[in-house]
Amino acid sequence: MTNKSLQDIKAIAFDADDTLWINETYFSETEKKFCGLLEDYASHHTIAQELLKTEIDNLALYGYGVKGYTLSMIEVALQMTSGSIDLNIIQKIIGYGKDLLNMPVELIDGVEELLQQLNSRYRLVVATKGDLLDQEQKLKKSGLEKYFHHIEIMSDKKEQDYQKLIRHLDINPEEFMMIGNSLRSDILPVLNIGGHAIHVPFHTTWAHEHIDHKIEHANFKSISKIGEVASLLEM
Amino acid sequence: MTNKSLQDIKAIAFDADDTLWINETYFSETEKKFCGLLEDYASHHTIAQELLKTEIDNLALYGYGVKGYTLSMIEVALQMTSGSIDLNIIQKIIGYGKDLLNMPVELIDGVEELLQQLNSRYRLVVATKGDLLDQEQKLKKSGLEKYFHHIEIMSDKKEQDYQKLIRHLDINPEEFMMIGNSLRSDILPVLNIGGHAIHVPFHTTWAHEHIDHKIEHANFKSISKIGEVASLLEM
Repeated sequence: MTNKSLQDIKAIAFDADDTLWINETYFSETEKKFCGLLEDYASHHTIAQELLKTEIDNLALYGYGVKGYTLSMIEVALQMTSGSIDLNIIQKIIGYGKDLLNMPVELIDGVEELLQQLNSRYRLVVATKGDLLDQEQKLKKSGLEKYFHHIEIMSDKKEQDYQKLIRHLDINPEEFMMIGNSLRSDILPVLNIGGHAIHVPFHTTWAHEHIDHKIEHANFKSISKIGEVASLLEM
Repeated sequence: MTNKSLQDIKAIAFDADDTLWINETYFSETEKKFCGLLEDYASHHTIAQELLKTEIDNLALYGYGVKGYTLSMIEVALQMTSGSIDLNIIQKIIGYGKDLLNMPVELIDGVEELLQQLNSRYRLVVATKGDLLDQEQKLKKSGLEKYFHHIEIMSDKKEQDYQKLIRHLDINPEEFMMIGNSLRSDILPVLNIGGHAIHVPFHTTWAHEHIDHKIEHANFKSISKIGEVASLLEM
């Protein structure tokens, strides 16, 4: 990442879940409880595998977010128990989904200080997948709304989705930087269209977001804490 | 609606479901099938009432759209059958939800001709509630995407939501016109913030969208066919 090219940056987009606030932790806890519900029928590992498969199968129809996740859990429960369903199981799953939608927003350390620093120099946006209302409400609950120009809730994070966002911001790709925890969704597509990207890993990543190879690119940097963005941008 | 004030209009927003394409018809058919599934437990009327109540109760958490509707149907089925649930019922409900997400897009008569006429003179947008991915895909399937500047998927359609849309379009409220089938969501909030609104009723409206009073306002007009917009705007 050269200092020269960083001077061009006009807008910085932040992924939301597991970049601004904690999310995957709540999903992991829910998955554990879900596997516990069905442990008379299969091992935790088998249930978790089946859930992942069902989620991915449903992605084209449901998109990302808690509501699709809840529907996928119900579908897996029906399959796993093949006929001998206990009413309570479905009721509990619906409750897990509502709990996820009601979960508190816990900011990741250093996020607010960073946004305060960047706010006057860059146009900041949130670029996130998930359910529309849910993500809007999390942003409100976070108290971070005031730092952002707007929130862009995307049905997917592929190259053409970022191109649309960049057009919407009325800038060129080299003036755009994305910060996020998913190499697959936040980093690779942005680098591919000529933007800048900073990876801040979260301690767990959803299996569907995993990629295997190592990234080396002039517009890319991986850091361990989001606060390090400030010194990268020489603030 | 005075011709003079209509000359100021720069952007026209269209509601999507039951304004550009048929929607409520599919939901009504689904509701009928859903009531049929549970007819051993209660009358169609009771089930429909319970579903409406549950949908409205869940609106603050789920927002609008098929996924929340599906989860509400499952919740009602669990309540109505209190313990004696048949696995097939839940499976069928999940299938109904997927059918709704896969339903063909059937344009309302005169829509495409109108958009062709308006396209060169106004900035056109889609302003709709519902699930993000679902609405994007319906717009793609409709073949109407090329006429629109963008699609704005809104978590709600209240005054502040329209104010945000109008800011986003970089215009003043008096330069904005909304066309839709719901007085409550498409018309009243827009008139209240100083915009123009045209009501094109669809033969059925979701009970939650009903309002009782008659609207009289200088910036308002009700027409029976969407094609009449062209002559209203003297095209």
